Amino acid sequence: MKYISILGSTGSIGTQTLEVVRENTDLKVIALTADKNIELLEKQIREFHPVLVSVSEDVLAKELRSRIKDVNTKVLSGMDGLIACATEKSVKLVVTAVVGMIGIRPTIEAIKAGKDIALANKETLVTAGHIIMPLIKEHNVRLLPVDSEHSAIFQALNGETMNRISKIILTASGGPFRGKKKKDLEAVTVEDALRHPNWSMGRKITIDSSTMVNKGLEVIEAKWLFHVDLDRIQVVIQPQSVIHSAVEFEDGGIVAQMGTPDMRLPIQYALFYPERRNLKGERLNLFQLGKLTFEEPDYETFRGLRLAFDASREGGSFPTVYNAANECAVAKFLNREINYLEITGLIDAAMKNHKKINHPTIQEILNIEKETYDFIRLITT
Amino acid sequence: MKYISILGSTGSIGTQTLEVVRENTDLKVIALTADKNIELLEKQIREFHPVLVSVSEDVLAKELRSRIKDVNTKVLSGMDGLIACATEKSVKLVVTAVVGMIGIRPTIEAIKAGKDIALANKETLVTAGHIIMPLIKEHNVRLLPVDSEHSAIFQALNGETMNRISKIILTASGGPFRGKKKKDLEAVTVEDALRHPNWSMGRKITIDSSTMVNKGLEVIEAKWLFHVDLDRIQVVIQPQSVIHSAVEFEDGGIVAQMGTPDMRLPIQYALFYPERRNLKGERLNLFQLGKLTFEEPDYETFRGLRLAFDASREGGSFPTVYNAANECAVAKFLNREINYLEITGLIDAAMKNHKKINHPTIQEILNIEKETYDFIRLITT
Repeated sequence: MKYISILGSTGSIGTQTLEVVRENTDLKVIALTADKNIELLEKQIREFHPVLVSVSEDVLAKELRSRIKDVNTKVLSGMDGLIACATEKSVKLVVTAVVGMIGIRPTIEAIKAGKDIALANKETLVTAGHIIMPLIKEHNVRLLPVDSEHSAIFQALNGETMNRISKIILTASGGPFRGKKKKDLEAVTVEDALRHPNWSMGRKITIDSSTMVNKGLEVIEAKWLFHVDLDRIQVVIQPQSVIHSAVEFEDGGIVAQMGTPDMRLPIQYALFYPERRNLKGERLNLFQLGKLTFEEPDYETFRGLRLAFDASREGGSFPTVYNAANECAVAKFLNREINYLEITGLIDAAMKNHKKINHPTIQEILNIEKETYDFIRLITT
Repeated sequence: MKYISILGSTGSIGTQTLEVVRENTDLKVIALTADKNIELLEKQIREFHPVLVSVSEDVLAKELRSRIKDVNTKVLSGMDGLIACATEKSVKLVVTAVVGMIGIRPTIEAIKAGKDIALANKETLVTAGHIIMPLIKEHNVRLLPVDSEHSAIFQALNGETMNRISKIILTASGGPFRGKKKKDLEAVTVEDALRHPNWSMGRKITIDSSTMVNKGLEVIEAKWLFHVDLDRIQVVIQPQSVIHSAVEFEDGGIVAQMGTPDMRLPIQYALFYPERRNLKGERLNLFQLGKLTFEEPDYETFRGLRLAFDASREGGSFPTVYNAANECAVAKFLNREINYLEITGLIDAAMKNHKKINHPTIQEILNIEKETYDFIRLITT
């Protein structure tokens, strides 16, 4: 029996993780956390019987407690609750599927407590890779990527630990605006941007996918996860989302992982690595597919991707600014406060305004996030 | 230092193996064998200083001895010479790159002598897989495929030994006659058939590639090498020869190996497995490539492929008949004794004429080969 904790169980990755749990009787959910969706969390508690759950606010915890009086599950709240769920003694592996900087501290505490991490929270490595990676090594735990691209690279590297990577081929669908030029994107609405061609994901990540900021964040993550220089990471547009990513080795051999776009595969792979298990669902049909195409990214139109390379090359606190500015700008776009092209414009402005800190602590990272938010609010009002 | 022996050093695979040796100073050639090309073998002796060489005929051995009087290399001939080269005491790995049934006995003797085998001789597994595979297990040696497709599958399986294969995707370029129908192939000349679009190979294998008999032989080999049922082997036409083959696992994840068409990669991979080493040469450029396409094989036009499945499904001595009939028919085609479509016609006729032996011994396999040759000679005169 493998005991797991899922931070962010009511989101897209969280619910799909529970689908995998449902199909594998040797997985046992010990803890679940949610932001505000206590209706769904209650259902999950009744189905999976966790020992512990946590929600964002105390008032929600109180309401949840009164709803599940008949159930033997402890309800906590806030950062203390999150950390308690991440470090519960019996837990072997923590799925960190919360969105945002809030994921960093519980991830760190889980690592310190000796838990393996199935990482779906982008902010952790983007902003604190320089803290997380040494910690993973120090505590000798596994960092298992859940993102489909990083999982693909991780799968391609399986059995290749002794071999040098010559290049990581990070594939991208190109999103709904592939082939468009800047002037075509001026009038993009929230609805347009939420229409992803291949993957079904949360709202924020879908916008990030349309701006290719998502791919930018993945580039920064890949640098940390696989210990490669930025100039060895090549972003390749592969609109059919069939090749999930690939690794070229120094002999010129490329190992790629392919399949249908189904997040349950990387989730399940992380939960049971290096074991694969049967997964119900559609299989890739190459004859039906007919072809795969490859394009170079348009770094002019999709400035967000170029800025990620800039932020990562600058290093230090710059990726935090990149990420925080994007998070704030996307929220404003989803709120219809700014137009679509302003998202990357604001990231650029925030980076230009920033003074680098070389090895920011977690507290400094959180301060920089706040300062970036403040800066963006200031220049957008 | 890794001591190796190359059986068939003057052929396509042999010379490319020596190119790899030339670039890796920790490989030492102990023995080389050639059929008749003593000019090239002499050059190889002078460059690589093997302890032992062997040629097919005694008269050639005599001539070679007189040519290399100044060199301290022992010259043998015939099957005894081949076996001596395959079993030389200090040798760790034997590259079996001879063409034809002549490769089987030295391969068996090498296995019995505890040598790892880098297998490039198709006939070994096609005709004697039922003898070779248990022997490999019994003597606890490695069987490392050199064929680009089998190497790709082998690479895809690296690190996945605990996981069940749901499907092997064996790719095929489709050869020079892809898309053609039977009536288009009636007037095919030797020159037409020798024009392979992607790979540079020997004459016999180039013809086999055009008829897809080569792919058929690979299907039979894959069944033995990877312990999969025939209905789990899917042949996929991938005309760009970029995906060298792939494996689908039971979770639906597909791991593929891709690259430029360069036989030195699978050769080098077999020599150093599981280590990869730098290999000079062109790298795959996905942007330049632009697209990959996939097609279903045309089993009507390329009957040779269908007959391979039939032969393998029948099992026993049928794959030997399939292979021997093809070998004899291709020789006749290259000699301009028969027309192109008769190649597969003769395979079909030989299989229809054959009475199965269930677990043929090596002697029975050799007898069946001879009987098949006799049968084809009989019906073509």
